[in-house]
Amino acid sequence: MTDVVVAGGGLIGLAVAWRAARRGLTVTVVDEAPGRGASEAAAGMLAPVTEAGYREESLLRLGLASLERWPAFAAELEAAGGLPVGLRTVGTLVVGFDDDDMRQLEALHDFQQELGLSAARLLPRAARRREPSLTSRIRGGLLVAGDHSVDGRAVHAALLAAAEAAGVTLVRDRVEGVVVDGGRATGLRLRSGGTVPAGSVVVALGAHSAGLPGLPPVPVRPVKGQILRMAGAAGLLDGTVRALVRGRHVYLVPYGEDRLIIGATTEDRGFDPTVTAGGVHDLLHDAIEVVPGVSELELAETLARWRPGTPDNAPLLGPTAVPGLVLATGHHRNGVLLTPVTADAIADLLATGELPDRAAPFTVDRFEAP
Amino acid sequence: MTDVVVAGGGLIGLAVAWRAARRGLTVTVVDEAPGRGASEAAAGMLAPVTEAGYREESLLRLGLASLERWPAFAAELEAAGGLPVGLRTVGTLVVGFDDDDMRQLEALHDFQQELGLSAARLLPRAARRREPSLTSRIRGGLLVAGDHSVDGRAVHAALLAAAEAAGVTLVRDRVEGVVVDGGRATGLRLRSGGTVPAGSVVVALGAHSAGLPGLPPVPVRPVKGQILRMAGAAGLLDGTVRALVRGRHVYLVPYGEDRLIIGATTEDRGFDPTVTAGGVHDLLHDAIEVVPGVSELELAETLARWRPGTPDNAPLLGPTAVPGLVLATGHHRNGVLLTPVTADAIADLLATGELPDRAAPFTVDRFEAP
Repeated sequence: MTDVVVAGGGLIGLAVAWRAARRGLTVTVVDEAPGRGASEAAAGMLAPVTEAGYREESLLRLGLASLERWPAFAAELEAAGGLPVGLRTVGTLVVGFDDDDMRQLEALHDFQQELGLSAARLLPRAARRREPSLTSRIRGGLLVAGDHSVDGRAVHAALLAAAEAAGVTLVRDRVEGVVVDGGRATGLRLRSGGTVPAGSVVVALGAHSAGLPGLPPVPVRPVKGQILRMAGAAGLLDGTVRALVRGRHVYLVPYGEDRLIIGATTEDRGFDPTVTAGGVHDLLHDAIEVVPGVSELELAETLARWRPGTPDNAPLLGPTAVPGLVLATGHHRNGVLLTPVTADAIADLLATGELPDRAAPFTVDRFEAP
Repeated sequence: MTDVVVAGGGLIGLAVAWRAARRGLTVTVVDEAPGRGASEAAAGMLAPVTEAGYREESLLRLGLASLERWPAFAAELEAAGGLPVGLRTVGTLVVGFDDDDMRQLEALHDFQQELGLSAARLLPRAARRREPSLTSRIRGGLLVAGDHSVDGRAVHAALLAAAEAAGVTLVRDRVEGVVVDGGRATGLRLRSGGTVPAGSVVVALGAHSAGLPGLPPVPVRPVKGQILRMAGAAGLLDGTVRALVRGRHVYLVPYGEDRLIIGATTEDRGFDPTVTAGGVHDLLHDAIEVVPGVSELELAETLARWRPGTPDNAPLLGPTAVPGLVLATGHHRNGVLLTPVTADAIADLLATGELPDRAAPFTVDRFEAP
């Protein structure tokens, strides 16, 4: 019997598995297609400051804690797996187009200042000196030097290699349910008919974490996102550019030698897998507005996936009312950013029985009726 | 030795081969990937009247002659190959958005009237009665009842089957040159090293028809086109809709059960294979302007191919200065429309030695210095 079985081999599941294995636990991960869920679409932004939302301060704190871990996590991961993760530490530029966009940018900046976060206002010319491909039609910008990015797919590949090197067993099968025995979670039931018995069961199935037989209610819903991957972008952007284009959000995240991600729509449509004309149009339109040179890039890939959304946009971490059953899901738009802090918190819990303080606000019982 | 060898297994090459075989000739077609050139991207419009261009009257006449043949050609082809070709005979609607668009539509209509072509002006309401998915923002329309469409890929599949049934030999190899012996074309040289000797050689390589070793100058250049294929379009449009959207052209061609083609860019960029952000954006933007419901469709496929353009936009048909060497290329935007008339004219030439009168204006010697 394995100490831990993890349902889900995306970024979160694999990172939990890797960190738990490094704590001396025997770990099995079950996924029929590891990395083919939200991880495949992730833009890889590590951007808690530019993403900072009102009434989401505890999430912001968690994001900042995770961002702080990222450089060491990346270095360790690259050493363990032998594969690069594409960490870019050049900062993130946020720009706006019209009066309303600029008011939103100002409000974001005020909020950042209140919280003591580091962000600098830039005049249009200064923003374009930083990213010369930006259109001259921007009205102003914010430079957040601390918001970085990684190559999400590279991170996933590195995690697979690192987990394997740490002795994690990967079972390529579909999770059909949690085995509950005498009120306690004791393993996973697989589509192939078998089960994986384990001391602890971690559910890291992203948007698919709800509704699994044997599971108590998990308040996760699919939030569809469409993203575009472009090729031929060498030299176009140095770092991430986020923009408010007359009220609509778009981001452009360079990665690899010549790649660029343009993202992302946010749609409440259930598990609709369709890449739509409207979604692709809006992303291209806004990206070309911000960086006209995007027009010449190759549209290399279009993709739709589902983020695991929760009622308060924060993740579900830690124990549940079912002994032995642990959640590591609900990361919504922040899966890549929150990977290190999630992995370490859950590995702590699995190794010691105690959830670290920083993760305590994110247990699922916060949604229970009082 | 085969009577005829055809270089190119696209719509034109296969149709020539099929018709020639039906005339009793033995025919071989050489293509490493039949139907993967411009045929794969073709929207399948049979629309000489809506495409009528000033100073291109002889091309228009050829197009009308081919359109007239299409129903019988389609019926024969479906019978011979056992596969459907998706002929739609509901007519084509052309709409305009602003004053300039409407002036262009008026000018097109005047030109059509002068030539005795059948087209009816429609008020916006009448256009929308015909195609209820049209935006209410159109300013007017032209209904061309005689302009139809087929499913280009289905036609290609049907031609492959019909050619095979007629005894045509298909050699899946790349054409590397024309064998010229004593000033006469005597076959094709293949990449694999072999040759296919033949009494007559037909070049139907589309945009790749120029620059082949052994060939005299063929004034064909690649004219890049990007098109989009959408799914989920059942019931959206009854027939083809073409639009002038503030000076830009877009067309929407329904096919199959629930499919829609949105096309097409026209770019002079040589053999650039890139599907670009700008190309896809412009097509989606204009299509959504014309038919807002396009926004919800699935973007199923994006594609870039090269039309074989000529200096006067008309095809190159018939004999060359090299005995035994025949051209069936240069069809530019009209390959599908001109397939029947081309196939019959070239098959006539191959079987009788005489090019029919209707094809005579399209021999390559029209470009020779006087």
